[in-house]
Amino acid sequence: MGNSFGQLFRITTWGESHGGGVGVVIDGCPPRIKLTAEDIQRELDRRRPGQSSIVTQRDEPDRAEILSGLFDGQTLGTPIAILIRNQDADPEAYKKIVNIFRPSHADYTYEAKYGIRDWQGGGRASARETIGRVAAGAVAQLVLRELFSQFELVAYVTQVHEVTAKIDSRRVTRGDVERNAVRCPDEAAAKMMMQLIDRVRSEGDSVGGAIECVIRGVDPGLGEPVFDKLDAELAKATLSLPATKGFEIGSGFAATTMRGSEHNDQFETRDGRVRTNTNFSGGVQGGISNGEDIVFRVAFKPTSTIAREQQTITSAGEATTIAPGGRHDPCVLPRAVPMVEAMAALVLCDHALRQRAIRVEERT
Amino acid sequence: MGNSFGQLFRITTWGESHGGGVGVVIDGCPPRIKLTAEDIQRELDRRRPGQSSIVTQRDEPDRAEILSGLFDGQTLGTPIAILIRNQDADPEAYKKIVNIFRPSHADYTYEAKYGIRDWQGGGRASARETIGRVAAGAVAQLVLRELFSQFELVAYVTQVHEVTAKIDSRRVTRGDVERNAVRCPDEAAAKMMMQLIDRVRSEGDSVGGAIECVIRGVDPGLGEPVFDKLDAELAKATLSLPATKGFEIGSGFAATTMRGSEHNDQFETRDGRVRTNTNFSGGVQGGISNGEDIVFRVAFKPTSTIAREQQTITSAGEATTIAPGGRHDPCVLPRAVPMVEAMAALVLCDHALRQRAIRVEERT
Amino acid sequence: MGNSFGQLFRITTWGESHGGGVGVVIDGCPPRIKLTAEDIQRELDRRRPGQSSIVTQRDEPDRAEILSGLFDGQTLGTPIAILIRNQDADPEAYKKIVNIFRPSHADYTYEAKYGIRDWQGGGRASARETIGRVAAGAVAQLVLRELFSQFELVAYVTQVHEVTAKIDSRRVTRGDVERNAVRCPDEAAAKMMMQLIDRVRSEGDSVGGAIECVIRGVDPGLGEPVFDKLDAELAKATLSLPATKGFEIGSGFAATTMRGSEHNDQFETRDGRVRTNTNFSGGVQGGISNGEDIVFRVAFKPTSTIAREQQTITSAGEATTIAPGGRHDPCVLPRAVPMVEAMAALVLCDHALRQRAIRVEERT
Amino acid sequence: MGNSFGQLFRITTWGESHGGGVGVVIDGCPPRIKLTAEDIQRELDRRRPGQSSIVTQRDEPDRAEILSGLFDGQTLGTPIAILIRNQDADPEAYKKIVNIFRPSHADYTYEAKYGIRDWQGGGRASARETIGRVAAGAVAQLVLRELFSQFELVAYVTQVHEVTAKIDSRRVTRGDVERNAVRCPDEAAAKMMMQLIDRVRSEGDSVGGAIECVIRGVDPGLGEPVFDKLDAELAKATLSLPATKGFEIGSGFAATTMRGSEHNDQFETRDGRVRTNTNFSGGVQGGISNGEDIVFRVAFKPTSTIAREQQTITSAGEATTIAPGGRHDPCVLPRAVPMVEAMAALVLCDHALRQRAIRVEERT
Repeated sequence: MGNSFGQLFRITTWGESHGGGVGVVIDGCPPRIKLTAEDIQRELDRRRPGQSSIVTQRDEPDRAEILSGLFDGQTLGTPIAILIRNQDADPEAYKKIVNIFRPSHADYTYEAKYGIRDWQGGGRASARETIGRVAAGAVAQLVLRELFSQFELVAYVTQVHEVTAKIDSRRVTRGDVERNAVRCPDEAAAKMMMQLIDRVRSEGDSVGGAIECVIRGVDPGLGEPVFDKLDAELAKATLSLPATKGFEIGSGFAATTMRGSEHNDQFETRDGRVRTNTNFSGGVQGGISNGEDIVFRVAFKPTSTIAREQQTITSAGEATTIAPGGRHDPCVLPRAVPMVEAMAALVLCDHALRQRAIRVEERT
Repeated sequence: MGNSFGQLFRITTWGESHGGGVGVVIDGCPPRIKLTAEDIQRELDRRRPGQSSIVTQRDEPDRAEILSGLFDGQTLGTPIAILIRNQDADPEAYKKIVNIFRPSHADYTYEAKYGIRDWQGGGRASARETIGRVAAGAVAQLVLRELFSQFELVAYVTQVHEVTAKIDSRRVTRGDVERNAVRCPDEAAAKMMMQLIDRVRSEGDSVGGAIECVIRGVDPGLGEPVFDKLDAELAKATLSLPATKGFEIGSGFAATTMRGSEHNDQFETRDGRVRTNTNFSGGVQGGISNGEDIVFRVAFKPTSTIAREQQTITSAGEATTIAPGGRHDPCVLPRAVPMVEAMAALVLCDHALRQRAIRVEERT
Repeated sequence: MGNSFGQLFRITTWGESHGGGVGVVIDGCPPRIKLTAEDIQRELDRRRPGQSSIVTQRDEPDRAEILSGLFDGQTLGTPIAILIRNQDADPEAYKKIVNIFRPSHADYTYEAKYGIRDWQGGGRASARETIGRVAAGAVAQLVLRELFSQFELVAYVTQVHEVTAKIDSRRVTRGDVERNAVRCPDEAAAKMMMQLIDRVRSEGDSVGGAIECVIRGVDPGLGEPVFDKLDAELAKATLSLPATKGFEIGSGFAATTMRGSEHNDQFETRDGRVRTNTNFSGGVQGGISNGEDIVFRVAFKPTSTIAREQQTITSAGEATTIAPGGRHDPCVLPRAVPMVEAMAALVLCDHALRQRAIRVEERT
Repeated sequence: MGNSFGQLFRITTWGESHGGGVGVVIDGCPPRIKLTAEDIQRELDRRRPGQSSIVTQRDEPDRAEILSGLFDGQTLGTPIAILIRNQDADPEAYKKIVNIFRPSHADYTYEAKYGIRDWQGGGRASARETIGRVAAGAVAQLVLRELFSQFELVAYVTQVHEVTAKIDSRRVTRGDVERNAVRCPDEAAAKMMMQLIDRVRSEGDSVGGAIECVIRGVDPGLGEPVFDKLDAELAKATLSLPATKGFEIGSGFAATTMRGSEHNDQFETRDGRVRTNTNFSGGVQGGISNGEDIVFRVAFKPTSTIAREQQTITSAGEATTIAPGGRHDPCVLPRAVPMVEAMAALVLCDHALRQRAIRVEERT
């Protein structure tokens, strides 16, 4: 259990990194949404390996096949099943670590939980698992665009190790983000990040960083107190991604050193509607969207797989060393950008549908 | 929707801050757990207002009545309903803000979502809503103690505004925490925190801070990839608490500036079992507990209610000012400690039961 | 687990027959529905014991207290908690059966499942558990009346033992049903039923029967294939009531001896909309409402508690005899009518909200 | 929504009858269950068209491909995705009914619900949708056999139109059932059923009937009061199958004409354990299994598709006639037997896991 996400727009992902493929079933997509395989492929291409020199060189075309739920180019309201075959799987490369627990990987914990694990490439703990999420997130974004005419969703790298970028979350566009391979819209910082990633890779090491995500144009009223608050759901959604260590919304951890008199977002009437004059809340108050930009950040650890030799133990408990090799990202951040966007879209779409079920203006 | 939490150990909370009371129904508690009203009361007393000079002086005894699910001092396996009546409710105090949106409160968003709100004291957005969580968390802790003989769960304040404490998460006990009113086990820091809180209150302002939580003695194997990962669930659980802005586990945001070679927790055999020699993972790898201490931190914003005058608007959109008065905490941290513990216990208990359903050793 | 029902209009019931009370929490009720305690009381009074000479004489006023979710006579969109205290509980009467498994009761199975049971009056297996359902069903009916202006829901007794009634499901009203204590709108049959129930009681025995339920005026389109079909959900809902043994919709078991050429409901245009000229489908096709009357029937067994002596065993496995005595219904049917209506209303309301989330006409 | 079933052993089916295929994702299957594609194929072959002269002649090999969740012949505890491609799809045959609502089919209700439908062969309302259920049911049966050493599950046709069979539910085996094409273990009745089906087909008509299912060897204690009672769940599970109209357990509708003194199952100690001397309860009391055989029956209507001309309307509301032709079953019963078994296995497996999570004997 645990492979489904969402209440009304509900996805179930499946697949190991080296089995027959990976995929997703979307249940609850509203009918009559225009959808093509290309809409999905566009997002998968942003996530896929081998897209630039700074990411893993595993060669996976990651072609999505839509198996159901579509008719004449529109959704039917029935489950949308999407299949992506694995192709460049290389189980041989993993044979030497069959009985070794890689440090900070999920090898040991999967063994402890299930008493069995697929040692070929990480199984479900592989980043390949996120393909289904990204495919479903592409569909969620189409739904959101139909529900909210002003809807925009942009994530971007704000930090790689100690290189931090300056980005105005109110203005950044997806075009800005896609301008470079590291997906950081601050060009100067991006250049330094790419150099750093190259250097780290050459040293057989890896680095972490942070991604920020901004969502514009959703109505006030999304989010379901008290447990399914919008911020709580975004946190769960993004921290279910591999390699994540932290989440903050609006002021985030910086709020800990602020006073109420600084932090409170004062209301005003602007553009003919209720607005706040600051946005420390990050677009969510009491767990419900307030119409301001929703802004959150996610912390990623350095990739666990590094070329350097490390101490570890075998599954029999004996000390050994490991130097994995294989094809890996020295920094997951650039490819994680579409993953964060997908998870955000899934949360927003689910809550938009949940709000439709009870919303007031439709009954009166 | 959104007032239930958990899959197998599932709680549903209800109640507004100024209605007939607040409460919780626990569905899925295993049978034959010894439970008394006193077990619950002990935790509620740690949460309740008026317990010390640095918290709100609203006078609520918060006496829990267990209405069902108990027989001869043991749980029946049937739903446990717990009722806490509201007593010191003072709706009159709120009459002056009936039509005013308090800055950074949930007044506006509830209005936007539901088209109606209980303006008396915050309704569901009040911290009183957490009473049901704390009551249920007390039950969850009893279950966890029965399932894991070494189980320990301790949360504590590590930071109030710019005062930060030095605490060894591996050794801190609940006794250490309860030694002072601010619930910070570093006595020197605690003293400074209390002085700061007093000063801030006298200035009509408020402050934020951080709470750390450590969980010891749970088995490896808890957590359900890929969406219900243990860390993702802890994040959702704690970020569903009022006034929270961020969550991090293990290395957290500090991981963003680390290299893989530093960050990886190397495995070793110690104490006759699999251990890691560092714990940057925070006790969770691939979303599953690895047997190390689970350590996470939660950021809290400064309380939104402050005595100072602020700009805001009426529900008709007209500019006005507000200086709420009323009885409020200048710093929510001390009373949030048992809330964080409760949410952590609920997540752990739920996942312990989920793992029992499939665990391997029982079938062979 | 298992004490919640519904996806969007979700209820959780709690309480044993002889504990502090029984109750329900409704999560997901839309905001701004007019609701008073009297709306709920009216339905509870139809369910409560002691209302006529043919039902159990246990004296329970069953007064409902609404604890939350209501403000100024309207729902808030937050959880509605309803509490009904137990009053005429008589645990002493049960002391003689502490260690005896009553035939066809749930004593043994609760013991087998939980390893503990509340022997005072049946615990959760008591018909008192249905109070929460009936209270929630009253709220669901208010919502349905707001959503569908033509909404009508009427259940009635069609059979008691071998006495069967003639009732035109297309025309029967709740007024017809309430005209007599047995809740059978065929007055001649009702009279025979009442005589039979009286005689059976005097013989220390009990009888079963059947209830039919008709729902009019709901839109086509309710029901969620493929598992949450409207008929499947109605079946689960009603067969979760105590003493039920069977469910059928439309033609039901009679369909087994029909041919397709007789059974198919042919479409026609009537009253300006799509109609069928027969209704063997019972208002549901492919699991989705088609706009015709939804008509289903539920079979009830004779009450398990009878005054006559019966063979059974003790919890230690030794043969013994039992003659329970106590206050019980010789026939559950009359009081089961509002229970069936409540469960039907809960299903319909939940599916009406589910359909609102995706419905087409609102997006275009 | 509505395409998932089960709480812990949870399946999600997808696919239209004429799209890229159909399939299922199983989430929550315990790890280390031995499983091969052949285990699944065996059940699919019992369901597939073209297997005998009395079923539809559509030629679908229905080969199952297991895409994930399996490693070295054992389940991993991760999602098991199963894909079955559509092959003999013939959309051309449906072109003449693009704008016609077939009587007692789901054409109109899908249109009403979604505003769009796949007119090629029934879409999700096609019996092809059940392939995923049967595949998942095969896995559930493997799990149940591992959990309960005496587990047996047998369904069979007891009635086709007015031909009824005599079958002793306590002794019937799957071998008995598979002996003839109609899957009725009473050979004399089976012969008459086959003749009847042949005749009905030649007359361009169809017939209904009933299937009984018996489950032996499961522990007492399965089923989750009060809503997820075992009998309520079996009802929902089977009434979510196409063409079903009724469900009854144990005495079923016959209970309506019984007295309590006849109907009560008296307890005795037999074979060293608690038994009842009759089984009118059908193995379930208070919604929980009592260790006796679980016996239930499902009513099926005559197939809606018949060769005879019928009155109906177009989607524009105009009167027309239809004589579908195509390849269809004159009687769905023989192929519905493995479907009923699959749904029963899914319910039992889910509840066995749910009971493991809380069961008493493991904690003491």
